[in-house]
Amino acid sequence: MAEEKVERFYDWFLRVLEEGEFIDQRYPVKGFIVHRPNAAIIEKHVYDMIEGELEKEGHKRSMFPSVVLKSFFEKEAEHAEGFAPEVFWLEPIKGESEERLALRPTSETIMYYMYALWVRSYRDLPMKLYQSCQIWRLDTKATKALLRDREFYWIEAHDVFRTPGEAEEQVLTDERIMQKTVWERLGIPFVFLKRPEWDKFPGGEATYAFETLAPDGRALQFGTTHNLGQKFSKSFEIQYLDEDGEKKMPYQTCFGPGVSRILACLIAVHGDDKGAVLPFEVAPVQVVVVPVLFKDNMKEKVMEKARELHKTLSKDYRVVLDDSDKTPGNKYYHWELRGVPIRIEVGPRDVEAGKVTLVPRDTGEKKQVPEENVLDAVKEEAAAMLERMKEKAKKDFESRVAEASSMEELGKKLDEVRGFVKVPFCDVESFDGLACADEIGERFKAFVRGVPAHNPEKPPEGARCIVCGKPAKHIVWVSRSY
Amino acid sequence: MAEEKVERFYDWFLRVLEEGEFIDQRYPVKGFIVHRPNAAIIEKHVYDMIEGELEKEGHKRSMFPSVVLKSFFEKEAEHAEGFAPEVFWLEPIKGESEERLALRPTSETIMYYMYALWVRSYRDLPMKLYQSCQIWRLDTKATKALLRDREFYWIEAHDVFRTPGEAEEQVLTDERIMQKTVWERLGIPFVFLKRPEWDKFPGGEATYAFETLAPDGRALQFGTTHNLGQKFSKSFEIQYLDEDGEKKMPYQTCFGPGVSRILACLIAVHGDDKGAVLPFEVAPVQVVVVPVLFKDNMKEKVMEKARELHKTLSKDYRVVLDDSDKTPGNKYYHWELRGVPIRIEVGPRDVEAGKVTLVPRDTGEKKQVPEENVLDAVKEEAAAMLERMKEKAKKDFESRVAEASSMEELGKKLDEVRGFVKVPFCDVESFDGLACADEIGERFKAFVRGVPAHNPEKPPEGARCIVCGKPAKHIVWVSRSY
Repeated sequence: MAEEKVERFYDWFLRVLEEGEFIDQRYPVKGFIVHRPNAAIIEKHVYDMIEGELEKEGHKRSMFPSVVLKSFFEKEAEHAEGFAPEVFWLEPIKGESEERLALRPTSETIMYYMYALWVRSYRDLPMKLYQSCQIWRLDTKATKALLRDREFYWIEAHDVFRTPGEAEEQVLTDERIMQKTVWERLGIPFVFLKRPEWDKFPGGEATYAFETLAPDGRALQFGTTHNLGQKFSKSFEIQYLDEDGEKKMPYQTCFGPGVSRILACLIAVHGDDKGAVLPFEVAPVQVVVVPVLFKDNMKEKVMEKARELHKTLSKDYRVVLDDSDKTPGNKYYHWELRGVPIRIEVGPRDVEAGKVTLVPRDTGEKKQVPEENVLDAVKEEAAAMLERMKEKAKKDFESRVAEASSMEELGKKLDEVRGFVKVPFCDVESFDGLACADEIGERFKAFVRGVPAHNPEKPPEGARCIVCGKPAKHIVWVSRSY
Repeated sequence: MAEEKVERFYDWFLRVLEEGEFIDQRYPVKGFIVHRPNAAIIEKHVYDMIEGELEKEGHKRSMFPSVVLKSFFEKEAEHAEGFAPEVFWLEPIKGESEERLALRPTSETIMYYMYALWVRSYRDLPMKLYQSCQIWRLDTKATKALLRDREFYWIEAHDVFRTPGEAEEQVLTDERIMQKTVWERLGIPFVFLKRPEWDKFPGGEATYAFETLAPDGRALQFGTTHNLGQKFSKSFEIQYLDEDGEKKMPYQTCFGPGVSRILACLIAVHGDDKGAVLPFEVAPVQVVVVPVLFKDNMKEKVMEKARELHKTLSKDYRVVLDDSDKTPGNKYYHWELRGVPIRIEVGPRDVEAGKVTLVPRDTGEKKQVPEENVLDAVKEEAAAMLERMKEKAKKDFESRVAEASSMEELGKKLDEVRGFVKVPFCDVESFDGLACADEIGERFKAFVRGVPAHNPEKPPEGARCIVCGKPAKHIVWVSRSY
């Protein structure tokens, strides 16, 4: 495990993001950052990936207005209370008497106003729409690049169903989408937690969160999915005429994969002291070709070979030929910081042997491959590298989930494993447990993140809440968090 | 030429957009419309298309903040004057003393603040970035769906060069990008006009516009490209150290293809009284399979064949099987309105003959094709249909460009050809011609749109401005407009 990223995570993270030209924080408005090509291109690939899965599951792309009426917020009381302090308001428009408008902090109220107009009959259901957009939240805490910005990028999918069973099923589908993308293709291991009652989405019935771990031990939530039940269909009067001729209220879910947050996870989970380590599929530059010029008499031959390789590889991959006049060492530093998955070195000896040297970013282990096999060799190495990255990340994640059976042990384990600690806990299904959760928060700056959505562990016979000593209904996952 | 779309264009346009479920205007905030899947999916394809060309020309994707500081506007005086009345301001944030913020009406000032930080050496040039985003303009005129919204979707590409020649070259590249996409792949004919001096982008040196014609004779601008010269590099202090060791100011261009506007053009240019006619490449549904069930005894066989066709076609295309219980006539109406390029009918006779009936949206001419050739037949018909659409649109466009040599004739021709009328005009290269342009505006509600960027016609010897009678320097294009 790399030292710098563990010991001083956020400093390391910010150095990689800024020196690696992923983002720039110098735009002088708090919480509004610039996503430079190295970030925006990865985010585009993440968007494509998740949108593709959403579409396979029957969702259609839409674009809804970015402003919301004050009265819309107020239709769902809990929702209004949860979001009202966190929005940017627009100044009233001179000469127009429209009501107060805010920038969307999320789009439930915008979309469900329209859903009430569109949903008429059971034939219109399920209705599944998504939009890929930015949202704005007026977080008054210190902002942190990609982790807590005031403007950030996500997808939001909003679904409407006839039955509560279909809504529950959708929650599992959302999880499967994240498995197939964030885990399988990006190699980010995660836990899918059902949040405690007091930590639900304002206006929802149940909230589930996708979380991985930052190197410093804090949980990184990169998405949520909410079972809204009929709460919003009541407040927004969404109704449909069922087959039996009766008017009914549908059940709803919403799913919000955080694209900027997924980028943060990619850097945080896979990076090392040299910088980012990117999965091949989403890397803005997948292969860098570096000519290594020692002998002057071979210079032209080496350059020619490098140009040839660049051309060959560009057919299938995003490739850069670094023919700048920097030293090879400086070039390696430059591209390693940016996480380029595969480096191909061509030196005089390679040219003579008809080979090239291939260096995967994760291990840095050089291997020679015959020049004519280079396309296949890159493909194979890319696949092998993803498997290695997944294995490493999973092992690390699993090693950072511990158990504790007392407050003291919880505190010790949180520092020791830098991750999740599972403890017996009185109650997360009602507000009864909130006081205990608050005490954990006060003592350790840690939070009860919830219980796994699937097969949650049962507390052993007679187990008691580590805070209040009452009988434990759950084994909850506790961690610090961003 | 279709009657309804010519005679009552905007009514027809809105009917197609709303009944065809492209957009919904019922969201109760003026100028903020909902882009439903039928619009959002087309817009996504248009984004992909133009982004692809921009990337081939060396542009990289980025995402910049959506808010702009008041002081940034004010750095470029003309720019500030041009945009200040047209922006949405945010309310001040309680407890923070930041300066007034607006939603971006365009991103020059946001991006160039960053460019000043990034551009250091001649090695950093050219710098070519684009972002795909929405912008907000507080237009106080009546809003019109997709034509004049307060929130709309576009791409903006912002380039920085060492020499004025490269900037001029980029203007031509931008035009080529539009030729390769909007004309060649979407079949929208256009003219590329250099705007008069008084109609330039606020803060630019020269403005060029891409314009096609709406059926009612008004010009539809769907993009602009601006040669900014050194105006913004001066006001934002963008400087680079050149090879000769001297600090120099670069030359800039910006290019803004209007994605929502291109969607409007697609509907307006290709549509007919039955609704939209969409180019195959961007259609959300490319093929609809309609089983035609007359004989009861054949019903199951026809349905089976329809399902089989749906499966076969889905391998390569976006296909819907309409197995609803509507009549075939109602189904045709439904899908024609939405512009689905190819309908495939399967009836009992088709099943018996081993054939299917293929109906392209533009001509409606039925043709039978052997079932086993259906994939190829669709591909060929799609290509042939695009060619027909292009030819028809081009012929229509060309027939609507006329000439006039007096004010009286100009008025007559504007009504007669419903398009552009070319007239001798005193001067568009300085404000000297503004009074004449205003007079044309007052008399005919028409505007001097500019002169073609390439090979502009020279006025004949002794030609005089049709307004003031002074010697004519130019042949200008005049039209009404959206």
